[in-house]
Amino acid sequence: MEKEPLLMLPGPVPMPERVRYAMMRQAINHRSAEFGAVYADSVRVLKTVFGTANDLFVISGSGTAGMEAAVANFGRDKEIACIVNGKFGERLYKISQRYGKAHEIASAWGTPVNLAALEEQLKAGAEIVTLVHNETSAGIKNPAPEIGKLAHKYDALFVMDGITSIGGDLVESDKWGVDIAIVGSQKCLAAPAGLAAISVSSRAWERLSKNPPYYLDLAAYRKSASGKQMETPYTPAVPLFLALREACLLIEEEGLANRIARHQKMSAAVRAAAQEWGLSLFPKLDAHHTYSATVTAVSYPDGIKDDEMRALIKKMGIVIAGGQDHLKGKIFRIGSMGAVGAPEILATLAATQYALKKLGYKTHGDGVQAAAEVLG
Amino acid sequence: MEKEPLLMLPGPVPMPERVRYAMMRQAINHRSAEFGAVYADSVRVLKTVFGTANDLFVISGSGTAGMEAAVANFGRDKEIACIVNGKFGERLYKISQRYGKAHEIASAWGTPVNLAALEEQLKAGAEIVTLVHNETSAGIKNPAPEIGKLAHKYDALFVMDGITSIGGDLVESDKWGVDIAIVGSQKCLAAPAGLAAISVSSRAWERLSKNPPYYLDLAAYRKSASGKQMETPYTPAVPLFLALREACLLIEEEGLANRIARHQKMSAAVRAAAQEWGLSLFPKLDAHHTYSATVTAVSYPDGIKDDEMRALIKKMGIVIAGGQDHLKGKIFRIGSMGAVGAPEILATLAATQYALKKLGYKTHGDGVQAAAEVLG
Repeated sequence: MEKEPLLMLPGPVPMPERVRYAMMRQAINHRSAEFGAVYADSVRVLKTVFGTANDLFVISGSGTAGMEAAVANFGRDKEIACIVNGKFGERLYKISQRYGKAHEIASAWGTPVNLAALEEQLKAGAEIVTLVHNETSAGIKNPAPEIGKLAHKYDALFVMDGITSIGGDLVESDKWGVDIAIVGSQKCLAAPAGLAAISVSSRAWERLSKNPPYYLDLAAYRKSASGKQMETPYTPAVPLFLALREACLLIEEEGLANRIARHQKMSAAVRAAAQEWGLSLFPKLDAHHTYSATVTAVSYPDGIKDDEMRALIKKMGIVIAGGQDHLKGKIFRIGSMGAVGAPEILATLAATQYALKKLGYKTHGDGVQAAAEVLG
Repeated sequence: MEKEPLLMLPGPVPMPERVRYAMMRQAINHRSAEFGAVYADSVRVLKTVFGTANDLFVISGSGTAGMEAAVANFGRDKEIACIVNGKFGERLYKISQRYGKAHEIASAWGTPVNLAALEEQLKAGAEIVTLVHNETSAGIKNPAPEIGKLAHKYDALFVMDGITSIGGDLVESDKWGVDIAIVGSQKCLAAPAGLAAISVSSRAWERLSKNPPYYLDLAAYRKSASGKQMETPYTPAVPLFLALREACLLIEEEGLANRIARHQKMSAAVRAAAQEWGLSLFPKLDAHHTYSATVTAVSYPDGIKDDEMRALIKKMGIVIAGGQDHLKGKIFRIGSMGAVGAPEILATLAATQYALKKLGYKTHGDGVQAAAEVLG
């Protein structure tokens, strides 16, 4: 068998050896000081990565469980303004519909958030705003600080899904007025899939909804985390916690600023290649929005078929993402999250350039060389 | 550092090497045929272990998430009869209170289920019955077949928490009329903590509640599992799925009947030791109830302090459980779940016998020898 394929997706992402090997140890008691220290190490580092001094918990469940925890604990029967310019904004809207009166603030996927419509909704009484900071479905980064300001101006809670930005891009939850932030383990943290972390501001605690769900009851998480050793209310996914701790220690060792700079450089390299090839980046930006630093979405040129291109790339052991839902066949996406560096980016771009040419697209210039100029 | 402690708890339990090592591999794409096969292998074996031909899904979350999925998807706004004779029955009652009109059918922990009170509640219109099959908090096994019969007689759904029986003791979900059964990964399956599996009968699907939660929406699990490759609706905890598959293959290799016989023998050995020591088993049984085959709860004799005894045993590298809630200090519990065999049981009983004597209890006879007679 060949070496495992290189996953250049917007999650899951390749994990460093230290993270993977942390999982293979024997079961430990999750009601022990040892487990408490594992949990506490992760929380300490994650608070830095979130840019928060707020309470922070780790949930045994995927990022979606974290999104639901935010809405279910703070949004029940509330007016919720849901910003939607991609698949995950849509998911937060769908979750919000199950708990409160959800209002969609929609713009086309990959286009700027409609800040005026948001302000209207806030004036009309929205009590919570939900935002996906980094919308991987479209490769766009949304203006969290501006949205935080608006939410606070109208005394609304601000829920920010930072699932694919936290740990890879600059996030300053407290400075931006984020009341509830969420990250997933298998994205920029480069840990295995299956955990979500969530931070909660004191302002949010004051507005805790009644009758939360049971497994995602954040008050229970708070109670269990505040004893003499940190615990979770229900049995945690211990191997994943062991891996997350290792991933967090690696972030601490790299230094958060270095890590963010690395992510920015990697995504800049992908964008440079796309530009050199003469391809368009999918997002349509304005002054408030930027390209994602953790995934790059590129529009297919006419005549290139998604399945053919990704199959050629996969044959070389590299997996990139296509578009989701109505963007299937329209875009391809290259993740640059977590532990990836120049080798992975160069290999991916070389394979992509090869595939584009093979399928008859005339690249304007040498994208691989352009990317190397950024990376070097 | 010494070898890791031997966990003789009612979960988590020691994992075989093959199970642990399955987790250390590199991330794989969970939207791939490879992951689909991993999921399908587990489902195939789990259906045998559950004794069911019903749909079966694996949720990335603990057993509690599985319990909530059962109640939230089938119990919203319903009359729910919750049988409570231990901590986990109580938990199902608490979860049920968040979704429906929950009625507690209570008896003291470790004492028989009040079948007459259950029948009254069913006559009065209960639409669902919840039961913990094997109540680890008290070491009692509840009469699931009788309760299934009663539930069906009154056309109610039967939710059975088999978290600590399935994979270790005989469970025949379909024969017993169990509509929804749940297992946790870190108990008799001897896999890591963090996954729950849940089966759903066609009778239950017909009565699916409206407005389920999002992350635990079982209709979404059904949809994702029924494509050309099995998937989960949201990102699964991939390393845990890899480990669960290995744990399931080990069950297949051992043979379910052999595995159940092994569990029965191990718990019989613990009971034989307790009897020889002159100690009482905690549960009070009647003709419908038996001792648990996966955990044994023993009442402390007068004068023996729980923390002192368990500390002496822990000093020898073995961890047994005390009592929970109001049973703290009153009982100790020895798990015999999953991969444990004679070496672990003998070591645990020898350490317990030593501790009892050290603390001044006059054992009637040699419990270790009595256990060895059962095991040999």
